[in-house]
Amino acid sequence: MAGTDRTKHQDRVPGAPGPAVILVAPQLGENVGTAARAMVNFGLTDLRLVRPRDGWPNAYALTAASGALEHIGRVRLYDRTEDAIADLTRVYATTARRRDIVKPTVTPRAAMAETQAVEAAGGRVGILFGGERSGLNNDDVTLAQAVLTVPVNQAFASLNLAQAVVLVGYEYFQHTHNAQTDDDTGRGSAPMPQGGFAPAAEVLGFFEHLESELDAHNFLYPPEKRPAMVRNIRNLFQRAGLTLQEVRTLRGIVSALVRPPRKQRRGLPPEGDSG
Amino acid sequence: MAGTDRTKHQDRVPGAPGPAVILVAPQLGENVGTAARAMVNFGLTDLRLVRPRDGWPNAYALTAASGALEHIGRVRLYDRTEDAIADLTRVYATTARRRDIVKPTVTPRAAMAETQAVEAAGGRVGILFGGERSGLNNDDVTLAQAVLTVPVNQAFASLNLAQAVVLVGYEYFQHTHNAQTDDDTGRGSAPMPQGGFAPAAEVLGFFEHLESELDAHNFLYPPEKRPAMVRNIRNLFQRAGLTLQEVRTLRGIVSALVRPPRKQRRGLPPEGDSG
Repeated sequence: MAGTDRTKHQDRVPGAPGPAVILVAPQLGENVGTAARAMVNFGLTDLRLVRPRDGWPNAYALTAASGALEHIGRVRLYDRTEDAIADLTRVYATTARRRDIVKPTVTPRAAMAETQAVEAAGGRVGILFGGERSGLNNDDVTLAQAVLTVPVNQAFASLNLAQAVVLVGYEYFQHTHNAQTDDDTGRGSAPMPQGGFAPAAEVLGFFEHLESELDAHNFLYPPEKRPAMVRNIRNLFQRAGLTLQEVRTLRGIVSALVRPPRKQRRGLPPEGDSG
Repeated sequence: MAGTDRTKHQDRVPGAPGPAVILVAPQLGENVGTAARAMVNFGLTDLRLVRPRDGWPNAYALTAASGALEHIGRVRLYDRTEDAIADLTRVYATTARRRDIVKPTVTPRAAMAETQAVEAAGGRVGILFGGERSGLNNDDVTLAQAVLTVPVNQAFASLNLAQAVVLVGYEYFQHTHNAQTDDDTGRGSAPMPQGGFAPAAEVLGFFEHLESELDAHNFLYPPEKRPAMVRNIRNLFQRAGLTLQEVRTLRGIVSALVRPPRKQRRGLPPEGDSG
């Protein structure tokens, strides 16, 4: 199947960089390289690494990428997943199986249909992939609005990282090159909120604001239960797919609730003063 | 992405073995093994080899297959491609690029849609894949009714055999497991939470609780904007599809936030008293 025609231009959608591929704590450099190669096969060029175990740049990755890294340009490095997704407006967490997290679970096809809609509205999408051994941890999954799972034979499920990236890239390419490829489904894509989804940094800012107030009001207690409580609350809001306006409304709600009430008898409408 | 649940049955369509994967003059045993593994991920179990360079059985293939060959059973060996496809009613030849052959060229998606139709009519489908170096020769391509080409970035096209097999298997699985996978409706595809969604009365109770506190804290102001603000806030939470436990958590959050804080310096962990 190999074959590169260097006389042709990079085959990308004008103005759409495609979803960012974010590898969280990848282990072998070689696997980062094959993931990069899988990306570029479908025109994806935004690769971000969170704490790569074997460091970056990496000679094994360079070899395995077979020239793909030249197409990718600058690979971005991060210590925290939160920072890697800060500019993204919709994030998917790739998991091999459904988890006990109440979050929409979508196939690569549905996710890339949504991605096209998000990009058309000016947003940016990213896909989180976990390390080879154990995948994403629950905190990373919580950072995503939806879970991406490849439907596979449950009696033998052994897709590797590059294969998962191939499927995502393939679906993205299909959705963005509709005119050039046949498409037997014709099914519509997900509804997009007006103005698109909020950037992840804004959503995280709301979470931290809420959690800081909940700490101050003794809600996230006892300490050993705090992480799970925080995850549950974050997941609940992530499921909604918040817009920037909604994030601002929620921050306003938290700020309003922690202020002393205007009236002693709650439930009555406020009087005419808005100060 | 790895994970096999051996308690589950092989996930196949009753009566449909899926398309046969026919590797013509493959070179490295390892690549035969990874192709087998890619097949079984999507429930395909009919593997046929035409003149494998390194012979069969092959120890490298066995290792690379990671147990997939147990699911495949007997791998059939042939000297000639003609014999390998003798029982098939429709054959696709996989090529990296269009050739000067007047033949329908289809994507994996279209080919697997056709495959499903062929199987429904009692026929059998096979996909020819060429060797690592040069692919299928023209005589082999001529044996097929159609050419299968993966749409890729023409500026960097380096899909390997296993990745091409993954795409074919994925599309077959999508077409034959429609009922079990979500579709492009995207955000509507949230899984049912354990215990189900909260009764509407509970959700409304939370809304009234929240809105009464927001009134008391002068947030839903001015009065002429109150109805729209209430609708926006309710919609945001409704999109999440709340469970009863989450409704209780949200009520707890509202109650906690309107209480005076325990500590003047917010953000510090609370002390040992939980009262």
